[in-house]
Amino acid sequence: MTIDRERFLQILHTPRYHQFLGLELVDAEEGYVKLKLPFRDDFLGDEAGSYIHGGVIAALIDIAGDFALITHFGRGLPTVDLRVDYLRPGQKHEDLYAVATTVKKGRTLSIADITIENSEGKKIAVGRGLYNTATA
Amino acid sequence: MTIDRERFLQILHTPRYHQFLGLELVDAEEGYVKLKLPFRDDFLGDEAGSYIHGGVIAALIDIAGDFALITHFGRGLPTVDLRVDYLRPGQKHEDLYAVATTVKKGRTLSIADITIENSEGKKIAVGRGLYNTATA
Amino acid sequence: MTIDRERFLQILHTPRYHQFLGLELVDAEEGYVKLKLPFRDDFLGDEAGSYIHGGVIAALIDIAGDFALITHFGRGLPTVDLRVDYLRPGQKHEDLYAVATTVKKGRTLSIADITIENSEGKKIAVGRGLYNTATA
Amino acid sequence: MTIDRERFLQILHTPRYHQFLGLELVDAEEGYVKLKLPFRDDFLGDEAGSYIHGGVIAALIDIAGDFALITHFGRGLPTVDLRVDYLRPGQKHEDLYAVATTVKKGRTLSIADITIENSEGKKIAVGRGLYNTATA
Repeated sequence: MTIDRERFLQILHTPRYHQFLGLELVDAEEGYVKLKLPFRDDFLGDEAGSYIHGGVIAALIDIAGDFALITHFGRGLPTVDLRVDYLRPGQKHEDLYAVATTVKKGRTLSIADITIENSEGKKIAVGRGLYNTATA
Repeated sequence: MTIDRERFLQILHTPRYHQFLGLELVDAEEGYVKLKLPFRDDFLGDEAGSYIHGGVIAALIDIAGDFALITHFGRGLPTVDLRVDYLRPGQKHEDLYAVATTVKKGRTLSIADITIENSEGKKIAVGRGLYNTATA
Repeated sequence: MTIDRERFLQILHTPRYHQFLGLELVDAEEGYVKLKLPFRDDFLGDEAGSYIHGGVIAALIDIAGDFALITHFGRGLPTVDLRVDYLRPGQKHEDLYAVATTVKKGRTLSIADITIENSEGKKIAVGRGLYNTATA
Repeated sequence: MTIDRERFLQILHTPRYHQFLGLELVDAEEGYVKLKLPFRDDFLGDEAGSYIHGGVIAALIDIAGDFALITHFGRGLPTVDLRVDYLRPGQKHEDLYAVATTVKKGRTLSIADITIENSEGKKIAVGRGLYNTATA
């Protein structure tokens, strides 16, 4: 990685919304990152409180894709666009894991693929994000 | 609308993640909804605390699209997939508004278009969501 | 428009794949274009020959979005990414119309929204394209 | 596969637009397909005739995703929506290859991931398609 672990964690833990999410770094190497989203009741998205909100999952996808690219560029990158396909609901009390890999590392635009899984490895969602790397 | 205002507000205000967001209903009619997201520091997405996180905007898009369809179906609907295009950053202290309209009202699948604006009417993001209406 | 009609038609009619499609210009102004795709049997996508292929519709969406932006930039622009939502099949013998409008006109990236309709005005598909305007 | 090779090839070769494209089957197994698109001048997308049109690539993505799912369902499936990210232009005289795999095999909706490469294995585009499997 072109960024040291301490700086990487700083970008992960400093933003206020990241703090709300409580994201943890599981693993990172060049072009790859795995993040953990420990369950919080604040993530629940339905009236009965059974499922994790799709917006939380979209945020996790956005962030994980960004961090896959941060392994190359060493800094956070603006998201240009984002696509999320929801495969099955994240359940109450379920910690989620995001695995993101670089699809394209470009001078102006880069792409990351992201998969969200539960602790049993079942896919919750897949996503693809386009990020602006022009100023990197 | 096929849903009364009180029930509509209940679906908007009950889920825990909606409470975190603090969403307010501005306007709703058949196939149309306008929501307000009053600014909170918890939404900030960068280390300097200057911009609203793209994940918060994605959630707002997801929710607004859902509520445009709730005006037809009278209940929350699972999101199948979601696309977000970010146009300009939402700034610190900026309240955001989501305007969502129905593109397709189908028996099994429905589509909503969503625009996120600031209070000056500048577009922050546009999105399109596909929702499962099969069980409605 | 920042491009004269003759040049606009040249960009529309010269590429080999555009010739295969047989695209016609219906209307164009700054930030807006309407194209016609006259039906051809070569567009049929199923074994029975009943429906227009989704790939033809995706191409029409891509091209119409490009031409909405050509009204600003005066030249063809590379597509960065494309999203297509299919609403109902295009039928055999049905001419299709693409209406495209500019969503964002940026220095490096621009966005267009596209709707495909049949001659009765029924929506066949909607799309959104991101185009590279960096070199414009 | 739940479909024999002869029937598979029939679905690939019968539709008129598939004939225009001249698609060839390279390989197929359960949840996987590789198709070849031999170059034709009719695919060229720019005035100079240097690049393969993005609409042809979008069609190839749509079709390959469909065929990945045909290995499970034994019949063609309507595309619900489609996303294409263009990575680099397909060049004149370049044969393209589409590799598609199943991401989700659902009772009502299924997802396929598709990568388009040239003969040197360089990625030209990636795509993701959602298909209606409700009537299968």
